[in-house]
Amino acid sequence: MSVILLTPDELTNSSETRLSLEDLFRKDFVLHDPDARWINDTDVVYKSEDGHVIKLNIETNATTLLLENTTFVTFKASRHSVSPDLKYVLLAYDVKQIFHYSYTASYVIYNIHTREVWELNPPEVEDSILQYAAWGVQGQQLIYIFENNIYYRPDIKSSSLRLTSSGKEGIIFNGIADWLYEEELLHSHIAHWWSPDGERLAFLMINDSLVPNMVIPRFTGALYPKGKQYPYPKAGQVNPTIKLYVVNLYGPTHTLELMPPDSFKSREYYITMVKWVSNTKTVVRWLNRPQNISILTVCETTTGACSRKYEMTSDTWLSKQNEEPVFSRDGSKFFMTVPVKQGGRGEFHHIAMFLIQSKSEQITVRHLTSGNWEVIKILAYDETTQKIYFLSTESSPRGRQLYSASTEGLLNRQCISCNFMKEQCTYFGASFSPMNQHFLLHCKGPGVPVVSLHSTENPIKYFILESNSMLKEAILKKKIVKSEIKMLHIDDYELPLQLSFPKDFTDRNQYALLLIMDEEPGGQLVTDKFHVDWDSVLVDTDNVIIARFDGRGSGFQGLKILQEIHRKLGSVEVKDQIAAVKFLLKQPYIDSKRLSIFGKGYGGYIASMILKSDEKLFKCGSVIAPIIDLKLYASAFSERYLGMPSREESMYQASSVLHNIHGLKEENILIIHGTADTKVHFQHSAELIKHLIKAGVNYTMQVYPDEGHHVSEKSKYHLYSTLLRFFSNCLKEEIPMLPQEPEEDE
Amino acid sequence: MSVILLTPDELTNSSETRLSLEDLFRKDFVLHDPDARWINDTDVVYKSEDGHVIKLNIETNATTLLLENTTFVTFKASRHSVSPDLKYVLLAYDVKQIFHYSYTASYVIYNIHTREVWELNPPEVEDSILQYAAWGVQGQQLIYIFENNIYYRPDIKSSSLRLTSSGKEGIIFNGIADWLYEEELLHSHIAHWWSPDGERLAFLMINDSLVPNMVIPRFTGALYPKGKQYPYPKAGQVNPTIKLYVVNLYGPTHTLELMPPDSFKSREYYITMVKWVSNTKTVVRWLNRPQNISILTVCETTTGACSRKYEMTSDTWLSKQNEEPVFSRDGSKFFMTVPVKQGGRGEFHHIAMFLIQSKSEQITVRHLTSGNWEVIKILAYDETTQKIYFLSTESSPRGRQLYSASTEGLLNRQCISCNFMKEQCTYFGASFSPMNQHFLLHCKGPGVPVVSLHSTENPIKYFILESNSMLKEAILKKKIVKSEIKMLHIDDYELPLQLSFPKDFTDRNQYALLLIMDEEPGGQLVTDKFHVDWDSVLVDTDNVIIARFDGRGSGFQGLKILQEIHRKLGSVEVKDQIAAVKFLLKQPYIDSKRLSIFGKGYGGYIASMILKSDEKLFKCGSVIAPIIDLKLYASAFSERYLGMPSREESMYQASSVLHNIHGLKEENILIIHGTADTKVHFQHSAELIKHLIKAGVNYTMQVYPDEGHHVSEKSKYHLYSTLLRFFSNCLKEEIPMLPQEPEEDE
Repeated sequence: MSVILLTPDELTNSSETRLSLEDLFRKDFVLHDPDARWINDTDVVYKSEDGHVIKLNIETNATTLLLENTTFVTFKASRHSVSPDLKYVLLAYDVKQIFHYSYTASYVIYNIHTREVWELNPPEVEDSILQYAAWGVQGQQLIYIFENNIYYRPDIKSSSLRLTSSGKEGIIFNGIADWLYEEELLHSHIAHWWSPDGERLAFLMINDSLVPNMVIPRFTGALYPKGKQYPYPKAGQVNPTIKLYVVNLYGPTHTLELMPPDSFKSREYYITMVKWVSNTKTVVRWLNRPQNISILTVCETTTGACSRKYEMTSDTWLSKQNEEPVFSRDGSKFFMTVPVKQGGRGEFHHIAMFLIQSKSEQITVRHLTSGNWEVIKILAYDETTQKIYFLSTESSPRGRQLYSASTEGLLNRQCISCNFMKEQCTYFGASFSPMNQHFLLHCKGPGVPVVSLHSTENPIKYFILESNSMLKEAILKKKIVKSEIKMLHIDDYELPLQLSFPKDFTDRNQYALLLIMDEEPGGQLVTDKFHVDWDSVLVDTDNVIIARFDGRGSGFQGLKILQEIHRKLGSVEVKDQIAAVKFLLKQPYIDSKRLSIFGKGYGGYIASMILKSDEKLFKCGSVIAPIIDLKLYASAFSERYLGMPSREESMYQASSVLHNIHGLKEENILIIHGTADTKVHFQHSAELIKHLIKAGVNYTMQVYPDEGHHVSEKSKYHLYSTLLRFFSNCLKEEIPMLPQEPEEDE
Repeated sequence: MSVILLTPDELTNSSETRLSLEDLFRKDFVLHDPDARWINDTDVVYKSEDGHVIKLNIETNATTLLLENTTFVTFKASRHSVSPDLKYVLLAYDVKQIFHYSYTASYVIYNIHTREVWELNPPEVEDSILQYAAWGVQGQQLIYIFENNIYYRPDIKSSSLRLTSSGKEGIIFNGIADWLYEEELLHSHIAHWWSPDGERLAFLMINDSLVPNMVIPRFTGALYPKGKQYPYPKAGQVNPTIKLYVVNLYGPTHTLELMPPDSFKSREYYITMVKWVSNTKTVVRWLNRPQNISILTVCETTTGACSRKYEMTSDTWLSKQNEEPVFSRDGSKFFMTVPVKQGGRGEFHHIAMFLIQSKSEQITVRHLTSGNWEVIKILAYDETTQKIYFLSTESSPRGRQLYSASTEGLLNRQCISCNFMKEQCTYFGASFSPMNQHFLLHCKGPGVPVVSLHSTENPIKYFILESNSMLKEAILKKKIVKSEIKMLHIDDYELPLQLSFPKDFTDRNQYALLLIMDEEPGGQLVTDKFHVDWDSVLVDTDNVIIARFDGRGSGFQGLKILQEIHRKLGSVEVKDQIAAVKFLLKQPYIDSKRLSIFGKGYGGYIASMILKSDEKLFKCGSVIAPIIDLKLYASAFSERYLGMPSREESMYQASSVLHNIHGLKEENILIIHGTADTKVHFQHSAELIKHLIKAGVNYTMQVYPDEGHHVSEKSKYHLYSTLLRFFSNCLKEEIPMLPQEPEEDE
C-alpha cells in the first residue's frame, strides 16, 4: 500500500489572516481582566490594562491612582489588595500555587501615601511563607493564615493575635480548605467569612487526621528531590471531619461552635456554604456525605443556636450546594433558587422567596420565576424597589442575561442586559454595589469581553471600564471561525451541538473533525462565551471542524438532563457523544475517516470511554490528566454519582477505563499528564499505560515533570503545540495513490 | 510541499524469511543457558532445555535426574540450587527484583529423595521474605540474609544462628551489597565469601547511615501507592563506609575485622574484591575513592593481620578492580593481569606471576604474556603441569579464545579453543573443574551459542551439553544479516566499525542507518558474540543498516583507547562516533538523509550529546534511561571519570546534556524511561524534558510506570515495538513528488 501525505495547503498564500499558535501568545492577544471590586456604593477599584491600580468614582468619573504599576516590579509582587480604608496595599510575592485556588506567598504591607513598607510576619517568625493574607472589611483589619492557624491584626500597627492554635500542617486546617474542600466542595481555598461589621469571623476547622495521604513525587530541581504528601480522600475512604466556629474579634476573643442540625450529628456531612446575613447571624448549608440531603440553617452567632430554614432531599444528588441565599436586611425573607418542575421537561432552578414568620419561625415560600430555563445566580435584592436582580438563561440556554423581577404583585420581569451591545454580548456576569445603586456588567461573549459600569436606576447609561480594544483589533485581522448550533433529538431531549467551521468552509468539501469533551459533569460547552484557544488554531490552520456537544450530564438546561448521569456516569455521556458523531457523519462535509476526540480530566475519562467503545469512529484522540478509575478519584466527586465503592463495586468496575481495556486496541491515543497533578493523580495515567502496555496497545505520551493539573504558563506553548501537531498529523488528508512499481531497492 | 510516504515494501512476498518482532518472542527463539556448575572434578549439575535439573558425570556420561521440571511448577519456584551433598534443593519463589542483581524471595528446602519440604525462616519469623539464601560449600551448610543480618545453619535440621546483629534496613548491610556496591563496585549483590573448607565466612558490613536517600515513587497497584527510598550516593555526596569481617562458624562464633592498609585508614576507600586463597587466608583489594590507588593485601583471618602484596597507581582511574588473582595452593605465588606497555600502542592487560619469598615476603614479578592484545580473565592454574589457563583477545580483539601458557621456561602459549567449531565459535567463556581436570566451554558466538564439556588433558574430546539446536534451526529459516567490520583511523588509533547489512543488500541502493551506542564506558560493541535482538528486526524488515563503533573509551583494545575518556567523558566519544558517521556518509550506499541513533543509560547520554552537537547528521534518535547529568549519577561512576564535582564544577557542567540544550532544537527524539529506575533515576529524563519544554523542543516520550532500568519481561514486546515503530517511521524512504495542483477543498 502506498499513500501520499499532503502537508497543509500553503499555496493560497492567505497565511496573514490565519490564526497561529504564536498569535495566542502575543501580547495583544491577552484578555485583560480589570479585577474590579466595589469599595462602596460609588467607588470601584480596578487594575488598568497597563497595570496601575485605580479608584474610580462612578458618579464623578474621577479616577485616583492608588498604586503605580512599577510598585509591582519593585516588590516582585504579583497580587495585591487595597485596604478598606484605601490607605494600604497588601502585596504578595514569591507566589507558589498549591492546589487549584490556593497558593503560598510572602507579603508586604505598603503605605500608599508614605510608600513605607512592612513585612507581614507572625509574631517571632521571620521571612514567613503564609497560606493566606487579606484585609478584613473595616479599616485596616487584617487576617492571615500560617501553619494552618489564623492570625488577626486589628490594624496594621497592632500586634498579631493568634485566633486558633489547633492548626497542624496537613492535618488540621483552620480558616483554609484542605484539598477536598477547596477542589470539590467550596471551590475556593478560603474557609472563613467576615461579618459585615468586621466584629466576627466565621471559619471552618477541617480535620484530616484520619484521611489517607497521597504522595506526589518530585523529579526535578534538586539532587535528591523529595515528594510531598497531603490528605486526599479517594472514593469510599475516610473523609475529613468539619466544624464551624465563630470568633468575635472586638474585646476578649471568644470562639463558639455552630452546631450541625440534629439529624446530621451522628452522620458524616459537609459544609458547602457559609454566609453572614447580619452582623450576628450566618446562614449555613450542611450536606450529608451521599449528597442527597441538604439542610439550610440560620445561626445566631452570639449563642451558637442554629435553626433549620430549608431542607432538600433528592433521589439523585443535590446540585448548586454553594449557592448563597440573598437575605433582606431584617432577615425576614430570603431568596434562593430551588428546583421547580416544568411539566414533562423536569425541574429547572427558579427563584423562591422564603418569608419567615417572625414569631412562629414558620416559613412560607413564593416562587418568583418559572419556565423552561434556569436562574443561574441571584445577585441582589433592592429593599427600596423590592426588586430582585439575577442572571438567567431565559433568552437562551447558551447565554446569561441580567434580569430584574419584582418580588411583589405580578412579579414583573425585565431584561436589563438584553439590549446592551447586542451584537457582541449575550453572555453576562454582574456584580452590584453594596447598596445596589450601581453594578458592574461583565460581557463575556460571544464578542471580545467588555466590562462596563451601570447605574441601577438607569442601566442604559454606562461607562466602559475595559473594552479589550487591543484584542478586538488583533482578532479582526484574523480569519473568523464561523460557528453554528444544531439541536439534536436524543431520547426526549433537544441537545445542542456547536460546530466551528473554518472561514472558507464550503459543504462541497470534506473536513476533518475534532470533538471536544467538557471538563466536568454539569458543565456547559456550548455557550456564547468568548473563546479563542488552541482549538481555534486547529480550525484555522488545519481546516478542521470543531464540535462541542452538551449531552446528558451537562448543566444549565434543567436538572433532568444533568441528573441522567446519576449511577450512569461514563455511559450515557458516551452514548450521547456517539449519537452526535453519528449525526455528523450524515453531513456531506464530514470526512468519516478523519474524526478525532479530545478531553481533559473528566473529559479525558469520557473521551477514553468513547475510544474504548465498540463504535470505532475515531482515528485518534488525546486526553489530558484523564480520570481512569473513579475509585482513584476524590470521594465527594465519585460518590456523588456512583455512591460508595464498597456498596457499588460492580458499578465502579464497569465505569473504569481499565475494564475491557482491549477496546482501545486500534486507537491512536496521546496521553498527557503532569506528574505533580494533585487533582487527577499521575497514578491514573500510570495505571492506564500499564494496562495498555500489557494489552499491547500503542499510544503516545507527553509527561510534564512536576507540573500540576493546570500546566504552568511556561509549558503552555509546548502543550498546545504538542496537541496541534498530534491532531494535525492525525487529521491530515490522505490521498490514495495509484499502486506504484516497487522501488528497485526494496 | 508534497511528499509521498511508502510503507515498507510488502510486494516481494518474501516475508516468510524476514525476521519479525514476533519471532523474538517465539519459544524456539529462546537462548537456553543450562546454568552448568561444577560439583566436583567429574560432576556437573545443569538445567536441561525442558527444565529438569540433572547431574552429569563427565567420565561415565551417566546422568542423574535431581529435580523434575514439575517441581518448579509445584512450588511456583523460579530459582534453585542444589546442596553440596546433593541431597537437598533450595527453591526460591515470589522472586522480586530489587536492583540489577539483587532480589528478595521466599524459600523452601526440598529433600530430593523423600520430597519433604521445609520453609526457610529466621527464628520466630513466619513467611519471611529473605534478601538472600544459599548453600555453603560443605554438606548442607546454609546461610541466608534477613533484614540485613546474616543467619547460618550448619545443616538443614539445625537451628539458625544469627551471625550479625548490626543490620538495619536501608542503613547497615551485612553480607549483602547496598546499591552502590552492587551496581558499580562488586557487580553482584553478594558481599560474603566462604572459605574453601566452609569453616569461615568473610563478609562486608556496608554502612550507609550518612548516605543521602533517593526516593523512587510508585504510581500503580494501590489506591495510595507508596514510594520507596534507598541510599544512593550521587557524585560528590557522602559514600557508604565499609568494613570487612571474618566469622568462624565451627565452634563458638568469633568475628574479626580485617583492617585496610595503613595508608587508607584515614581516607575514603572501596573494597572491590575479596577471595579466599586458602582455608585461613583471603586476598582483598582496596581502592581509594578517586579510584587511582589500589592495594592488594593478603589477610590472615585467624589474626586479622593483612600484608600488602601489590599496589597500583594511575594518572587516570584503575580498571579491572574486580579481578580475582589466582593463587597457587601453597600461596607462594599468584597470577594476576597488570597493564604492560606495548610500545606506542600503550598498555595492555597481561598476566604477571607474583612470587612471594617465603621469608622476606619480598615479591618478584614475572610477565607471562605480552603483545598488542588483552588477557581477559585468568581461569585456572594447574599445579601439576604448571600451566595457566586464560581467555584473551590474541586471535582477534572481537573474539575471546581459551589459551594455556606455561609459567616456566619459554612460557609456551597454546590456543585451546581456536579450532573448536571454528565456523560458529570465536567468542568463548570457560569454567574449570575444582582440580582443573575438566572445563566447560561456553561458545558465545558468532553462531548460536553452545556449551560443551572438555577434558583438560585432551580438549579435543568433548561432550555437547547444550547446542541450542532449536534456535539454530529457527534462525536458519530467517534471512541472515550480513555483517562486516571496517577499521577506521582516528588520530593514532585503528577503531572497529561493524556494519550489519540486510540480506539482499546491494551497494547500488541507498539505505537508512541506525548507529547504536554502548551501554557503559569500557565496554565493547563490536564483538563476535551471538546477537539477535530488536535491531536485527530493523535490518531485516526495514532494510536499515546497523552500525556499531568502538571508539575511544571502549574496552579490550588496550588501556590507551579506554583511558582517553578520562576527564573527557562525553566529548571524545562524541567526536569518534561522528567521525564514524562521516566515514559512512562517504559510502555510496548510505542515504545521508536517513541517519538515526540509539543508546541506553550511558549510551543514551552519548547519543544525546551527539544529537546536541553542532553536526546535524541525524534525522532522529532514541534514548532509554539516559544519563543526562553526571552530577545526578552514582559517585563511584561519575568520580571515576570526572573527579569530585566540588573541584570539577565546570567539567561537570560542560558534560551535562542540559548545557546548551538548544542544540537539540531540530531533532526528533524518543525518550524512554521506567519511572522506578533505581540506576539512572527518572529524574534524568524529567530534567531533560523540563529543559526541552522550556527550550520549545519537540520530542516523543514513552514512560514505563513503576518499571526499572531493565524493562520487565511483560513490557519487553511493547518496548521493542515502540522502538521499531519509531525508527521505521523516521527512516522510511521519502520520495519527493511532482508538485500537484492544490485540492479543491484546501
